[in-house]
Amino acid sequence: MPQEHRSGCPINLSLEVLGDKWSLLIIRDMMFGNRRHFRSLLTNSEEGIATNILADRLQRLTEQGMITSVADPRHKQRILLSLTEPAIQLVPVLAHLGAWGRRHLPVTPELAIRAELLERGGPQLWDEFMDELRELHLGLTRSAGTPSVLERLTEAYLKETQAQLVMSLPAKRAHAADKKTTM
Amino acid sequence: MPQEHRSGCPINLSLEVLGDKWSLLIIRDMMFGNRRHFRSLLTNSEEGIATNILADRLQRLTEQGMITSVADPRHKQRILLSLTEPAIQLVPVLAHLGAWGRRHLPVTPELAIRAELLERGGPQLWDEFMDELRELHLGLTRSAGTPSVLERLTEAYLKETQAQLVMSLPAKRAHAADKKTTM
Repeated sequence: MPQEHRSGCPINLSLEVLGDKWSLLIIRDMMFGNRRHFRSLLTNSEEGIATNILADRLQRLTEQGMITSVADPRHKQRILLSLTEPAIQLVPVLAHLGAWGRRHLPVTPELAIRAELLERGGPQLWDEFMDELRELHLGLTRSAGTPSVLERLTEAYLKETQAQLVMSLPAKRAHAADKKTTM
Repeated sequence: MPQEHRSGCPINLSLEVLGDKWSLLIIRDMMFGNRRHFRSLLTNSEEGIATNILADRLQRLTEQGMITSVADPRHKQRILLSLTEPAIQLVPVLAHLGAWGRRHLPVTPELAIRAELLERGGPQLWDEFMDELRELHLGLTRSAGTPSVLERLTEAYLKETQAQLVMSLPAKRAHAADKKTTM
């Protein structure tokens, strides 16, 4: 099948799978947000993905062997999406991409906290996280009592979101007071 | 400027810069192929980039602070392109992306050898390579006698290309002989 590809360069081939602005965001949301259904990927998307783009990218990612879908055992009428082993192995790529973005681009604190924790945790934390994803998405059980990386990342994110909210409150009040005096 | 961005997530912001099929390939060719001129990026591209796409992406990468351009001191009528510090810091991202592609996609051996060496060398080799790129692109001199990572990668690539060529010869001869007997 090499004729279907622009070249056999590993970076080019990776970009043929991931080189658009949405595919890797869908994988990010399934990975870090544990979003496993079409609707949660659609409505919780920070970036406001459109229905037709989400449907198209999910189909492409399925054809490329990055995700699989089955009828959800808990809600038969819903489709449960899972990451495949190759997609799970993108954790180090996403960790490095997040670390780079955090260093060079205008990130917002609550959305950058998980990237910071992943970067600080290094390869050992990535391995633990991949094992957890294998349990969640591939049904491969881990040894009992292993702490959850996903929980740690989510807690840090929620804590940072609350901190940002509290920090923004006095400004809002001051703004409201301003409005009153000028009206 | 957060309004210009879809979100302040580090992965999203990184994809806003790099999330198309060409931008990272241009950075790859400047980084690993030491291609510093429009023409060499155009004609040596494994993937056959079109003139207008190359021009557009070079402009976008310049606006995003990934590359700079000056009149080439050695050929005044030519423009010399350089990677910036943020672009040089993409080495670990490209190393991981290459490693992932090599593991999961149908790469060709001569185009995968540099990704293999980068992966095997790990963070220490990436640091050495980034220092070399800082010398080549930013004019920051390294300590004398430091071995060149770029040379090592290029030699391995040329050796693998030759090996592939030799391996393909008997097949070609056999094919030529086949042709003769059938004609």
